[in-house]
Order: sequence, then structure tokens, then C-alpha cells
Amino acid sequence: MDNLEIGHHISHQFDAELASVLNHLMNMGGMVEQQIRDATESLIENNTTLAQQVVVGDTKINALEVAIDEECIRILAKRQPTAIDLRLVIAIFKTITDLERIGDQAERIARQTLNLGGRECPATFCESFGEMSSLVLQMVHATLDAFTRLDTQSAANTTMVDDKVDMLYVDILTQLLPRIEARPNQAGEHINMMWATRALERIGDHSCNICEYVIYFVKGKDVRHIGRDAMKKFQD
Amino acid sequence: MDNLEIGHHISHQFDAELASVLNHLMNMGGMVEQQIRDATESLIENNTTLAQQVVVGDTKINALEVAIDEECIRILAKRQPTAIDLRLVIAIFKTITDLERIGDQAERIARQTLNLGGRECPATFCESFGEMSSLVLQMVHATLDAFTRLDTQSAANTTMVDDKVDMLYVDILTQLLPRIEARPNQAGEHINMMWATRALERIGDHSCNICEYVIYFVKGKDVRHIGRDAMKKFQD
Repeated sequence: MDNLEIGHHISHQFDAELASVLNHLMNMGGMVEQQIRDATESLIENNTTLAQQVVVGDTKINALEVAIDEECIRILAKRQPTAIDLRLVIAIFKTITDLERIGDQAERIARQTLNLGGRECPATFCESFGEMSSLVLQMVHATLDAFTRLDTQSAANTTMVDDKVDMLYVDILTQLLPRIEARPNQAGEHINMMWATRALERIGDHSCNICEYVIYFVKGKDVRHIGRDAMKKFQD
Repeated sequence: MDNLEIGHHISHQFDAELASVLNHLMNMGGMVEQQIRDATESLIENNTTLAQQVVVGDTKINALEVAIDEECIRILAKRQPTAIDLRLVIAIFKTITDLERIGDQAERIARQTLNLGGRECPATFCESFGEMSSLVLQMVHATLDAFTRLDTQSAANTTMVDDKVDMLYVDILTQLLPRIEARPNQAGEHINMMWATRALERIGDHSCNICEYVIYFVKGKDVRHIGRDAMKKFQD
């Protein structure tokens, strides 16, 4: 938390409260990253035990979301922050909603592993899925890092990575479709793989949302829905 | 807005601001409902012109989200509400995020219509999809109604409807899978139908989220992630 300028308040108590909520947010982020990693491994290694663990783990992330929400509401009620402090609390509010939904998507991947019930995914799929998952994990990590360092440039750069994620998503779907056509009796399994790939793609989108909140917080500018070209000016 | 008790503040200006933001939220809700209706019609009637309209219409919903967010932040900064007023602003904040994502899902359905490029969906699918869409629309409408009337009982009831939506979702997927197996050369089209069905299912989930915010606002109790059984006690 060293990089966030939260030490400028007259009330040390307020600083402590902000630092605490930010620490909880980063813990939640770390847990979410681990869930993505485990869910991916469960699918690639067809490890249903690990998948089960991810499903159970999601309840902890849900509980963290509710707890951090309550912390934010307490800060708003007690400290009535304005200007940049208010924007920070709002950014945290919104970020944890997206983090929780990233957690849901990781759970969704794990559920596909369970649906597959130990059946192996094709090697080409595993390779592409692993590559896409690594890229998505890089995005989530860079996003949380940009949040900690309030780095709008890095936040804007990270949203650009989502284009690559989207391309990989289309690639994998394009790979899977002819496999379904060729092996219609395995359509169900291939559709499970599609859902899992879709979940990864959604994680990229949620990461972008968080990057936009970072820019909103630092610049006071709402950059949602402005499109990639307009976003590019925050990269410099 | 008659049913919301917002006339209890000393500052009439504050009441006017709250009424205004709630009216904007309800306008956004009405637009989102229309988008779901149009997206559904576009798919069932394979009407690509209507689908195109839905895609364009989504930008208006996105703009409304940003505008309402800004209104909420202005209220927080200027009025520094506490207790129930603060909870209302938070509930609005969260609700518009879900409304915006419902809009995204409607757009997603319209995009499947465009992907199908005028090819007809099978009659049995159209019938089930239409039924599921009606149910989802009822949910969204009841949700917005519960918000206006601050009716926690109706909000809790609405979350229960989501179980029916989920069942219909599984039914449609179960219908589509053997069709893919029987006609592998039309797998792509059937997968488009699956994505559209999935989008409807997600709209049900977002509706549930909003119902939970209504309960949070009225009861001061966070009911997210508590499960259906625990939710039932809010039905009486």
C-alpha cells in the first residue's frame, strides 16, 4: 500500500481506515488470481478435486466483497469524504464488484471441469486455453498493480491487452467449431470448453472495468464506454 | 416515484435531487426492458435491422449509466447523506451497474441475430426462447417495480422466479445439444442460439442482484450470497 497517497489526511484514523480497506481489496485480488490459476489448472489437468476446491473457495471471495462493501459504507457515513477521497471510495466500491464477478467466472471454469467429469480436453485446446489464461492473469495482476500505484498509464495499457485476449477467444472458438462438426457425439464436451473460454474472456472485460475506475479515480474522468481510441490518450 | 419516501428531508433541494436520480434510473430501466424485447424479437423474427438498432441503442444506456453515476457522486459530495439516505444512493449506484450489464446482454442477443445473418432459428427454439424471454422481462419489470415501491417481499419473490429461468435455460440447452449432434454442419448457428440463451439467463442473475439491493436498502441487511433458503424469510 506504500504507493497510494493516503497519508495526507489530518485524521490519522481516516488514513488507517483507507489503508485497511485497500489492504482487504488487495487480499481479495490475490485470492481471485489464485482462483483463476486453480480453475485453469483443474480444466487442463482434468483435476476435479481442484475444481471442487475452486467452487468452495468462491464463497470466501463473496464474503470478502460484502465485508469490504460494509467498510466502504462505514467510511462514507463516518468520514463523509469529498473530492479525491470520495472518488477513491467509489472506485473501491466498483472494483470489488468486478473482482467478485471475476471470482464467479473462475468458479464457472471449475464447473466446466466438473461437467467434463475427468474427461481430457484435446491437447491443442489445453495449449491455447493455457495461453489465454496466462494473458488474462497478467491483465488481472497488472490491473491490481495499477490500482496500488495509481498508474493510469499502466491501467490504459492493460485495457489494450484485452484486444489480444479477445483475439485468442475467437481463435479458440474457431478451433472448437470444426471439432464439433467432426465429432458431433462429443458436442457437449466441446461446449463445456467453449463456456470455460468465454469465462476467461469475461475476466478480461472485468479487468478493463477496474482499469477504467483507476483512471476515473486519478483523473476524475469517467472513461467507461469511450472506446479504445479515446482510451489511448491515457497511455502517454 | 410517488411510492418512494423521499419527502422527509428538511432540504427540499435534496428531495428534488433524489427524485431526479430515481427518475433517471427508472427511465434507464424502461430503456433496458425495451432493448430486451427488441433483441428477443430480432432473434425470433430474424430481423437484422432491429438487431442493429439494439446494438446502437446500447450506447444510450451506457451514457445514462455514466450520467446517473455522476449524479450520485454529486449528491454524496454535496449532501453527505448518512443512514437510510446513504443506503439509497449506494443501492442506486449498484443498481445502475447491473442495469447497464443487462443492456450489454440484450446487445449480445442482438449480435447473435446478426451472426445468424437472417437464417431462421428452429420453431421449437423460438417458442422456448420467447417463453424464457417473457419470464426474464417479467423479472426485470417486477424488480424495477419493487425498487420503486421499496417492496422487499416482492423483491424476494422475484429472486425465486430466477430458478424457473434457470430451468428453462437448461431445457433449451438440452434441446439444442442433440440438434448439434444430428446436424453438425449447423453447429455454428446452434451455438449462436446457445449464447443468446445464456445472455437471457444472465439477465435473470442481474435482476436478482438488484432485488438484493432493494432488501439491503430497506432492511439495512446485505443479503448477497446468502442462498435461496435464507432469502425466503424476506418473502413474508
